[in-house]
Amino acid sequence: MQIAVVLFDRFTALDAVGPYETLGRLPDAETVFVAERTGPVRTDTGVLAITADRTLEEVPSPDIVIVPGGPGQTPQMENTALLDWLRTADATSTWTTSVCTGSLLLAAAGLLEGRRATSHWLALEYLERFGVEPTGERVVFDGKYVTAAGVSSGIDMGLALLGRIAGDEHAQAVQLLTEYDPQPPYDAGSPLKAPAHLVEEFRAKSRFILT
Amino acid sequence: MQIAVVLFDRFTALDAVGPYETLGRLPDAETVFVAERTGPVRTDTGVLAITADRTLEEVPSPDIVIVPGGPGQTPQMENTALLDWLRTADATSTWTTSVCTGSLLLAAAGLLEGRRATSHWLALEYLERFGVEPTGERVVFDGKYVTAAGVSSGIDMGLALLGRIAGDEHAQAVQLLTEYDPQPPYDAGSPLKAPAHLVEEFRAKSRFILT
Repeated sequence: MQIAVVLFDRFTALDAVGPYETLGRLPDAETVFVAERTGPVRTDTGVLAITADRTLEEVPSPDIVIVPGGPGQTPQMENTALLDWLRTADATSTWTTSVCTGSLLLAAAGLLEGRRATSHWLALEYLERFGVEPTGERVVFDGKYVTAAGVSSGIDMGLALLGRIAGDEHAQAVQLLTEYDPQPPYDAGSPLKAPAHLVEEFRAKSRFILT
Repeated sequence: MQIAVVLFDRFTALDAVGPYETLGRLPDAETVFVAERTGPVRTDTGVLAITADRTLEEVPSPDIVIVPGGPGQTPQMENTALLDWLRTADATSTWTTSVCTGSLLLAAAGLLEGRRATSHWLALEYLERFGVEPTGERVVFDGKYVTAAGVSSGIDMGLALLGRIAGDEHAQAVQLLTEYDPQPPYDAGSPLKAPAHLVEEFRAKSRFILT
């Protein structure tokens, strides 16, 4: 079983690391970080780099594809090399997954047409442009496609998919070892719960960013 | 404000990335990943590498120190270069923090003596050897020392400390943007909640690892 995590310039680190730290604990699986070129790939903040150990070409048929999001997703929407790779990899994958705005890349590759999917709450409506039905759920399974909401939701997705593949007990063991017993100090993690003025502020800003 | 995240061979990725993705969003702060040598540092799985952009020597006095844990923590307990750096950095830091078994490194450096602290649930009792009072809490503040439990707890710590420094509203904004509204598919994230046989199995195994 091979798991490919796709990196691109200005991805969001936790989008990739959440599923890596959970789903990556699948027994007898190899996780590989891939990008157009090997070497360090900088995240959205510029201060963190994760190494791509293989090129996309070197990993043509992973069993599981994980596509993170982040501000760098926007220019990738027109990167035919990446979109072509996603279509090719998806043709033989067992599971094709995304976190955050990674779902927009799957959508741009034409992989989510007619399906239900999620994304970062600020990007949900953009899924519709690609014939995708957006949902506000945190993790959405539709056939072999699994999409997660913003950033931290990749942890929940990773555990859920791990359970489907390796069984509940193995997923519970990974949850226990990563001590994933969340106790956020605030209850502001979704647009339904956060202070309304913060939600509005970010919606207004995002209208200029996501066009 | 400078935030230093300390890397060492076989650290656990999420230990470092959780606080980076939350506390690292502090306004006007610079986060820098440091290690004994610059370049890629491999995590516990071997398949992920994060780049250390600066050496420990180049970052002698960060305002905030973040020490992750992971299986690689054990050999670091006798790494005088790292322990000396921790003591020096702590002498001028505003906050000295850890995630997971990173607290054992702070303890080995003598920084937690007589204080309350936490760690990965499997490592809690080892804190006592260094005159530290272990607690089962997820995030522990004791003066300027902030310790978090296993792996994923660094997200909660990062948000809590962000709130202390930058105010509740800024921390809520970061929680909203990282969509940290956890919905774990199981309730097995602590030894009090996970199936008892899993807890016992890992306790038995850990007795051979942590000595």
